[in-house]
Amino acid sequence: MEFTIRSAHKNDMKQVFNLINELAIFEKEPDEVELTVSDLENDGFGEFPLFHCFVAEANGNIEGLALVYNRYSTWKGKALHLEDLIVSEKMRGSGIGSKLLDEVVKYGYQLGVKRINWEVLDWNTPAIDFYLKKGAHIMRDWKVVHLNEQAIKNYIKKL
Amino acid sequence: MEFTIRSAHKNDMKQVFNLINELAIFEKEPDEVELTVSDLENDGFGEFPLFHCFVAEANGNIEGLALVYNRYSTWKGKALHLEDLIVSEKMRGSGIGSKLLDEVVKYGYQLGVKRINWEVLDWNTPAIDFYLKKGAHIMRDWKVVHLNEQAIKNYIKKL
Repeated sequence: MEFTIRSAHKNDMKQVFNLINELAIFEKEPDEVELTVSDLENDGFGEFPLFHCFVAEANGNIEGLALVYNRYSTWKGKALHLEDLIVSEKMRGSGIGSKLLDEVVKYGYQLGVKRINWEVLDWNTPAIDFYLKKGAHIMRDWKVVHLNEQAIKNYIKKL
Repeated sequence: MEFTIRSAHKNDMKQVFNLINELAIFEKEPDEVELTVSDLENDGFGEFPLFHCFVAEANGNIEGLALVYNRYSTWKGKALHLEDLIVSEKMRGSGIGSKLLDEVVKYGYQLGVKRINWEVLDWNTPAIDFYLKKGAHIMRDWKVVHLNEQAIKNYIKKL
């Protein structure tokens, strides 16, 4: 099936939201999505967008997305973070994931970033193999740390 | 020793840079710092700053820093990333690290972020214990992935 990769528009956010939920189910965390379609519309398409989103469109449907934003490394300088790379279940293996990653790397290269970062679940072997083949490094001794909304509130209460 | 926590000024970046290098040596990666003092000055204090930095000052010297910037979670929404939390070797155990983290959490809370993220080396047990005590979660099944500058260039060449 043919598809095209392009930057997302505000009115793609409904379908983008559906793919985000599809991924959360795959990652065994279906209840963790607290974001809404309006959040995505407001946060990504205001005066100071909090992210940039690429989508893959096939037959008028959004079948994949890559969502990125700037980061900053105190060792390297400007960096780009790939928050999500999602392909709809029915389109896995179609090459959409590769083409979306190509677009992200081109975007980062044009911005002059020194690094592109993302995160992967350690049991997601196909994804890890795919990233290694693309030249990425898995930083096995770094752990991701989260202070979630409830923990932030608890922290503030104790100050 | 008494210290004060405040937002960094552009002319603190020389001392901030020294602390960044001190941490890189501690983390066994002394050659990985490619950033310069000018980069920090330009990137943090232009029209669109790429980070916000807090510093701990004691006797006119910068003895600690916390460097943060915005991120975005497709599950939670606005997030804050703590890129570095550094205390000079001679001031470890003085409470500076705690006070800097307090300031970061207050800052995130005021911004209304839904999560504060950071990364920690898995062999840095004192740091991990400190973060756990503060209510943070170590996401043990997530791996950090880097596509570094050379890998970006190689990727682009193959497109």
